[in-house]
Amino acid sequence: MLFFDSKRFFPMTNWKFRASEVQVKLEELANYSEVKDALARPTLSKSHKKALEQIQIWMQEAGMAVVNDHAGNLIGSLKSKIENAPTFLMGSHVDTVSNAGIYDGNLGIIAAISAVELVGSSSSEIPYNIDVIAFSDEEGNRFPDTLTGSQAVAGTLDPNALTVSDSEGITRAEALTSFGCDPALACNSSYLDERPLGYLEIHIEQGPVLEREDLSVGIVTAINGARRFTISVGGNAGHAGTVPMSMRADALAASAEMLMAIESIAKSDPGIVATVGMLEVSPGARNVIPGHVKFSLDLRGENPVSIDTAQASIFSEINNIASPRQVKIEWSQDYKTPPTFCDPSLGELLEESIRESGVMPFELTSGAGHDAVAIAELCPVSMLFVRCEKGISHHPSEAVKLNDIAKALEVTHRFLTKFGQTCLRNG
Amino acid sequence: MLFFDSKRFFPMTNWKFRASEVQVKLEELANYSEVKDALARPTLSKSHKKALEQIQIWMQEAGMAVVNDHAGNLIGSLKSKIENAPTFLMGSHVDTVSNAGIYDGNLGIIAAISAVELVGSSSSEIPYNIDVIAFSDEEGNRFPDTLTGSQAVAGTLDPNALTVSDSEGITRAEALTSFGCDPALACNSSYLDERPLGYLEIHIEQGPVLEREDLSVGIVTAINGARRFTISVGGNAGHAGTVPMSMRADALAASAEMLMAIESIAKSDPGIVATVGMLEVSPGARNVIPGHVKFSLDLRGENPVSIDTAQASIFSEINNIASPRQVKIEWSQDYKTPPTFCDPSLGELLEESIRESGVMPFELTSGAGHDAVAIAELCPVSMLFVRCEKGISHHPSEAVKLNDIAKALEVTHRFLTKFGQTCLRNG
Repeated sequence: MLFFDSKRFFPMTNWKFRASEVQVKLEELANYSEVKDALARPTLSKSHKKALEQIQIWMQEAGMAVVNDHAGNLIGSLKSKIENAPTFLMGSHVDTVSNAGIYDGNLGIIAAISAVELVGSSSSEIPYNIDVIAFSDEEGNRFPDTLTGSQAVAGTLDPNALTVSDSEGITRAEALTSFGCDPALACNSSYLDERPLGYLEIHIEQGPVLEREDLSVGIVTAINGARRFTISVGGNAGHAGTVPMSMRADALAASAEMLMAIESIAKSDPGIVATVGMLEVSPGARNVIPGHVKFSLDLRGENPVSIDTAQASIFSEINNIASPRQVKIEWSQDYKTPPTFCDPSLGELLEESIRESGVMPFELTSGAGHDAVAIAELCPVSMLFVRCEKGISHHPSEAVKLNDIAKALEVTHRFLTKFGQTCLRNG
Repeated sequence: MLFFDSKRFFPMTNWKFRASEVQVKLEELANYSEVKDALARPTLSKSHKKALEQIQIWMQEAGMAVVNDHAGNLIGSLKSKIENAPTFLMGSHVDTVSNAGIYDGNLGIIAAISAVELVGSSSSEIPYNIDVIAFSDEEGNRFPDTLTGSQAVAGTLDPNALTVSDSEGITRAEALTSFGCDPALACNSSYLDERPLGYLEIHIEQGPVLEREDLSVGIVTAINGARRFTISVGGNAGHAGTVPMSMRADALAASAEMLMAIESIAKSDPGIVATVGMLEVSPGARNVIPGHVKFSLDLRGENPVSIDTAQASIFSEINNIASPRQVKIEWSQDYKTPPTFCDPSLGELLEESIRESGVMPFELTSGAGHDAVAIAELCPVSMLFVRCEKGISHHPSEAVKLNDIAKALEVTHRFLTKFGQTCLRNG
């Protein structure tokens, strides 16, 4: 596939033209899918392999040397001419959910390649290497775990992850072998001896905040911690016609009151979100008073203390509601991750770069998990969020304005330039 | 099966002994089931046929002449010696739900046979005939409709009911033919030329009110009207981590507020019950804000005006809740039956009979439907409710105290005697 070489004819500051190049590449990349007429690219699949082959070409065109690691990640390196220069990481994930949009993950790879190409073609030499990584497995759309690609890069991949199986019984080790990797080397990270200087991930927001604020991009201060619970409410089933309201122990009515309390507690702290996404009623017949309800609670926030406070309030309220209604509560915690904080120094560089790009700097937290969470174990991380339409992601209707991609590229280019200046200052 | 003939050895007022006879017969009858180790007797099934054969024997032992009608009902008649005497009806249904208890329906047949046997063996002649009917299809546990047995008796059975099919594609007409009936005659009622004087149905309460009141039996004043609705709440699905609480249109949170309003409105009128028994969340994933919820509303009450008022309040509140939450409401009414009022004169006779049996007369409404609803189209109806443990029905743990059956038999016997006196007074 031939691309019109914009750099020969347009000044490098024509960000919109570079953005349209990114857009064309993302659309091209969306063809690498396990299914027709939709984007579904599970990790270590054939479409994953094909996508990496295409990305390798683009990385090479951008002046990078490319290697495949043994965890399915593809790494393109722009080497500084300075000997033994330290390395800065960029990237995002190339795997997708089923029926995905074209931007989630992939934008962070292609935009990084575009930004690095521009840096590499610049007359001024950069004092650090840039590695752009197409992470192999962020979504968990094949095996039960997530973030294993970036964990391998961070050197934190648990060897047990090699033994987990997909729905067809193929282990990750087998899938890695088919992919051309040596699973025995999958957990070895090449970055542990000399840790990278930092990491920048460009990613769509997957939320509606930047759209509400009318901003192209935003600085991520933290990737929220998440806790998941399952709450079970046991009442008394009964005939919908024969049990007076005053004599009921309706598990669903009790749950409704609990849901209202959860919403109210989450609304009282802007740093918290609480979601009841699953609720199941038993027996679930129209003429039977619900005897049992099971519902999920997903609780996230930037601040562990806020999460603790919200969690304590929620369970206190649940118990307060249960008692007079004579329903029994059981609950379990299914999942807990602490928040990941982005590096304030990298955040400051992003802030300057955003301001100089003519956008009001705006900080927000990420409610969704990202490869940056795993990379934070390796080096300081930063994230640049790009506005997406209505906050929709994980869906074909995922959409990003060309102008917002352009702003992301401009900000990233300024960031990489500033970062170089910082490196030189710090010697 | 041999029964110890209690009448020879015990005075007729040993109600507890007669009650234990009823209990033994109910346990015997529970063996006629389509499945092993549980009671499931759908209409027009083999177990239904076997149960009728057994009931026919008991009716004959009680001095009744027995006929099968063409709708699957079994009718036992105790004839008065008075020529052209009018007829009084008793009975209940012999069909059961799947995994049923032994009392629902069947108690009303066996207790009626016991009471009639006593009346028939009495030295004083009764001035009216008593027909005890084992109705064939109250539960709707095979075909999509209900009450078709009693509708046939009332002469209101819609001929279209003959064409409906069960889950195996067998039509009711075919099932009736296999049962030995002539479907062409199924809708013909023998009671239309000379309407019966009235109807008494003995039935377990299927609710907890009599237990709360510490009473063996109660007088049903009305069988509540029921309305069923399906309410659909459309919000915006979204990522549980990325959408701030203030920007959500969470269909489940909105539904929870609606459920609270429904409960509150129903609690404000003791004559109303409202139940949300079914609630389904879409997409129903733990990390996705619910985009859509569908829930049922079952609304019942004795007084149509109260039901109207509650319905209007509920839908007004639902709309009030939907608007600020930016969710869309759609609803449909799936079902509507008006209340059925029991005959006050028959109720007075029940009241006297209960008082004379040493029980405080207590009136209540029936939230569940009964054959009496269909028979009310034919003649004045009355119902005697018998306390059942914890109000549980449609379940193997359905339980009735022997003493309460005894009280029901005593009350019924007094009622039938008093009714005879009324007949004589009215000529």
